[in-house]
Amino acid sequence: MSIQVIAFDADDTLWVNETYFREAEDKFCALLEDYLPHHSVAKELFYTELQNIPHYGYGVKGFMLSMIETALRVSDKKIDPLVIEKAIQYGKDLLDKPIELLDGIEEVLHQLKKKYRLVVATKGDLLDQERKLKKSGLAEYFHHIEIMSDKREADYRKLIGHLDIDPVHFLMIGNSLKSDVLPVLAIGGHAIHIPYHTTWAHEQIDHAVEHVNFRELASARDLLGHLL
Amino acid sequence: MSIQVIAFDADDTLWVNETYFREAEDKFCALLEDYLPHHSVAKELFYTELQNIPHYGYGVKGFMLSMIETALRVSDKKIDPLVIEKAIQYGKDLLDKPIELLDGIEEVLHQLKKKYRLVVATKGDLLDQERKLKKSGLAEYFHHIEIMSDKREADYRKLIGHLDIDPVHFLMIGNSLKSDVLPVLAIGGHAIHIPYHTTWAHEQIDHAVEHVNFRELASARDLLGHLL
Repeated sequence: MSIQVIAFDADDTLWVNETYFREAEDKFCALLEDYLPHHSVAKELFYTELQNIPHYGYGVKGFMLSMIETALRVSDKKIDPLVIEKAIQYGKDLLDKPIELLDGIEEVLHQLKKKYRLVVATKGDLLDQERKLKKSGLAEYFHHIEIMSDKREADYRKLIGHLDIDPVHFLMIGNSLKSDVLPVLAIGGHAIHIPYHTTWAHEQIDHAVEHVNFRELASARDLLGHLL
Repeated sequence: MSIQVIAFDADDTLWVNETYFREAEDKFCALLEDYLPHHSVAKELFYTELQNIPHYGYGVKGFMLSMIETALRVSDKKIDPLVIEKAIQYGKDLLDKPIELLDGIEEVLHQLKKKYRLVVATKGDLLDQERKLKKSGLAEYFHHIEIMSDKREADYRKLIGHLDIDPVHFLMIGNSLKSDVLPVLAIGGHAIHIPYHTTWAHEQIDHAVEHVNFRELASARDLLGHLL
């Protein structure tokens, strides 16, 4: 591999994220148990989120609006306004979560920075992702942060165009096969998958990935053996 | 002036925006007239928006959440859920508005592109601003779009760093003295103010601007006389 730029996904690759969303979702589902069983509310919320992605994109604000819309629909517009207020508070709590780095990340970035140009490539709300990078204390390791409205092939082509390199010199590292791996391989780049124990259903794919430019590793620490 | 890069603000500089927000705000205030007079609801909404900027940043999704929070507060949490549903619909309508270019913009960009590198520098929701640029048909005139979480001096320093130029070769054009002019002048860049007939209260300043690197023009068409 003649890698020049390594892009790291942020949520659940550098730091804990999905865990917090699941906690918020659980609390939200519990609020609506007068109307539907917990798992049915979760299903309704997921349906709302999928419908809303083309309008809102990814991130906490869209998640908040999807909770509110789900509460209205599930209750046939009879929801107690206190439920709406709580959903908003769950969202604001998400924005205020401390950053919990994944194991070994900082040491790995410290080593990789000596040899590669590192960037962050993430979906989500602009301000929220910038703030998380700042709070993480990891900003110094990265040339910059690219916040992408989506992570499809065209989005990666644009990113790699900005970086002024050929795809063959680009490596993406992330926890989502769908967003961090498949589109990058499709345009000629390299990808490493480091699974996180919890994956949002929207990011799941149902087949294995095999490709000469692809590797799966158990943890960030394993990157050093492959890249140094 | 030895300008190399010209950055255009988007909303109310390239296309109509504030007009649509005001229409949504008017409809929202009318919904709450059982609780408070129209102008008092508007004041409450503005207060909520200001409180929320540090959490949500700028854009339609934050505006939607601020409408919902205002409805909860003004009604002492007794709001009819139908009002919440309508506020969400007003927000979704904003995301679906057609793009109405300001007078003369396309011809001006066509001419300026021959001599300068043009970029868009805007606040707001990532996906929404990208979508508006695409719908506008203006994307071909711009090297790229920079969506900024805020437009303070530090944000412009970052932008100009990315552009790999000195501030003295940078010109910002926009409708907000507060966001498009003052911070750019403060870091050594050039700025041109083209007022729009409606300005969000948060963007208003109460003093005149005088600076050797500053000009105020009545319309985009006047740019050609100054820059070609």
